Amino acid sequence: MEFSFRLIAADGAARSGELTTPHGVVRTPAFMPVGTQATVKGLAPETVRATGADILLGNTYHLMLRPGAERVAALGGLHRFMNWPHPILTDSGGFQVMSLAGLRKIQERCVIFRSHLDGAMVELSPERAIEIQNLLGSDIAMQLDECIKLPAPRAEIERAMQLSLRWAERSKRAFDGQGGRALFGIVQGGDDPALRAASARSLVDIGFDGYAVGGLAVGESPDVMRRVIDDVVPALPSDRPHYLMGVGTPEDIVEAIARGIDMFDCVMPTRNGRHGVAFTRYGAINLKNARHADDPRPLDDESSYPGARDYSRAYLHHLAKSNEMLGAVLLSAINLGYYQQLTAGARAAIAARRFDAFRAATLEGWARGDIPLR
Amino acid sequence: MEFSFRLIAADGAARSGELTTPHGVVRTPAFMPVGTQATVKGLAPETVRATGADILLGNTYHLMLRPGAERVAALGGLHRFMNWPHPILTDSGGFQVMSLAGLRKIQERCVIFRSHLDGAMVELSPERAIEIQNLLGSDIAMQLDECIKLPAPRAEIERAMQLSLRWAERSKRAFDGQGGRALFGIVQGGDDPALRAASARSLVDIGFDGYAVGGLAVGESPDVMRRVIDDVVPALPSDRPHYLMGVGTPEDIVEAIARGIDMFDCVMPTRNGRHGVAFTRYGAINLKNARHADDPRPLDDESSYPGARDYSRAYLHHLAKSNEMLGAVLLSAINLGYYQQLTAGARAAIAARRFDAFRAATLEGWARGDIPLR
Repeated sequence: MEFSFRLIAADGAARSGELTTPHGVVRTPAFMPVGTQATVKGLAPETVRATGADILLGNTYHLMLRPGAERVAALGGLHRFMNWPHPILTDSGGFQVMSLAGLRKIQERCVIFRSHLDGAMVELSPERAIEIQNLLGSDIAMQLDECIKLPAPRAEIERAMQLSLRWAERSKRAFDGQGGRALFGIVQGGDDPALRAASARSLVDIGFDGYAVGGLAVGESPDVMRRVIDDVVPALPSDRPHYLMGVGTPEDIVEAIARGIDMFDCVMPTRNGRHGVAFTRYGAINLKNARHADDPRPLDDESSYPGARDYSRAYLHHLAKSNEMLGAVLLSAINLGYYQQLTAGARAAIAARRFDAFRAATLEGWARGDIPLR
Repeated sequence: MEFSFRLIAADGAARSGELTTPHGVVRTPAFMPVGTQATVKGLAPETVRATGADILLGNTYHLMLRPGAERVAALGGLHRFMNWPHPILTDSGGFQVMSLAGLRKIQERCVIFRSHLDGAMVELSPERAIEIQNLLGSDIAMQLDECIKLPAPRAEIERAMQLSLRWAERSKRAFDGQGGRALFGIVQGGDDPALRAASARSLVDIGFDGYAVGGLAVGESPDVMRRVIDDVVPALPSDRPHYLMGVGTPEDIVEAIARGIDMFDCVMPTRNGRHGVAFTRYGAINLKNARHADDPRPLDDESSYPGARDYSRAYLHHLAKSNEMLGAVLLSAINLGYYQQLTAGARAAIAARRFDAFRAATLEGWARGDIPLR
């Protein structure tokens, strides 16, 4: 199957659709669990699938360092390596070079960084980032970009945005698209509307299969994030998927769907699950809190994900307090299940042209908070 | 259902049979995964079930300290608490008091020990051990015993054995057997044949639903373990199940089955799995070894457990080297799957009166070692 995107319904700026990829169909709005080191932490692939995920994200930065892209290719590619036969999107490594690597030097040709694993100096160019993603065999590849933290001086934001555009062109030239695989460009420009608009315009001129909004979820306020999305999305082709990278909280996701975003990824559901926090329609719940110790009720007896119905709060509390691995495993899956329930709810609401009511009811549920103690 | 035991077949001293319990049937020889803190570490109950397990072991010592037996009872019992609707055997806490607790004092009436969790002084009497197991609602309860390390002076072994016998009587009086639940006695006596024989005789006089061999896997050699089993089993009623506590390696298990043991429990498959070691028909395999880094072959393409077929050695190596939680999860399940495959193989061989051939072929497979590198 060749990559394609089909809009199914729209309700205001919110859209639902379908991505077709070489490894299957992705329903949008879509949340992509993050499989950092070729694994969604703690979860077998069939468990990830059972949460409702259509597509995973793999991290080029991590996989290039260990086990290595050439090795994964020799083993049949990332899908076979991690036993996930469904769609995979890989990032380009740019974000982790910023957030994880030691000493790094950005040059026109490439970024040179010190591996966080063994201290080796490693080069990553736009061409190598694409080559790595070709080797991994992801269904959707991302251009290499330079992602900077906010706030930052305008000149610095502009420099990184212009460099990212030149890297976008080089990425496009390097990408072969074999087997129907897709390449997305990444809009940069920080919190500056003019720079964001210029970035989007130039990327559309180059022409990509989809467009991502990068450089958010890097320390800015929710208001800034939403304003940037409001600025960028209208500048993107409506017949291409719009991907908001690294976002976010359930509220961030609902608000971004309302503004025309189709795809998300974030470590939050699994990372917070490992720390004893559950995401539910009652908001985030800290299961380490003693209030749950004797509570026989499940997290949410109306959840579409069995894990949220089959275990008592008392049991999840016990696992979290005891630092039992199963607590991390169950809460990671429960949280992914909630994120999938949220995007599935959005898709259904958009199709029924009642997204505003869905959004209001969802926000109201979180604002009301957890069910009272009995 | 009331507890009962039915012998199906015998081949030499090896037996296959069926335990009926209030929560279902257990095929013997049976391996019981250990669910220490109300969880088999890292594995959801449906995963444990999928490995082929009929019955779990729960630890009285751990559960009495956290979350507490009264709390588990108020939450509907251990089966509901951990979402495992199948049979559960609970130990009496005696072994962990020896191996985990701080300062401890053995008295006629009870053992007093310092909790390894919070330093509190806790009393455990035979009556309280039974009360805790009643509250947990296990299908099979164990008497409280005093378990000592070997080697030990004969007088010390005899003292502990005699105390364990008096505790056996008190355990039997305290046990209500409601709902068809069973109580097992525990043979002690260290490595002394006369003491073992005396212990077995006295326990049979008291009368139990099943008989365990305790005080092994505490530092003695495999030869001593086998000799003690040879001494004890003939002294036990052949129409009751024989349970070898805390054992062991795959070889220990095959050799004990050959000597008339029906039930086993051990943390080895899950603990070693967490450390990157897989049990297979080729023997134990350390997946952290670099030889596996590029090996696309599964651990064992003829395994009856999917996890041993679905993931390459290269992937399991990557997970283990990266300290990824999924490595611990997959290898724990793969190892439990192998232990279940082993006991299932033994059951089939006994039924077909070819247990000696099964034992020889299994030992030969381990002795031959891992498949060669390609």
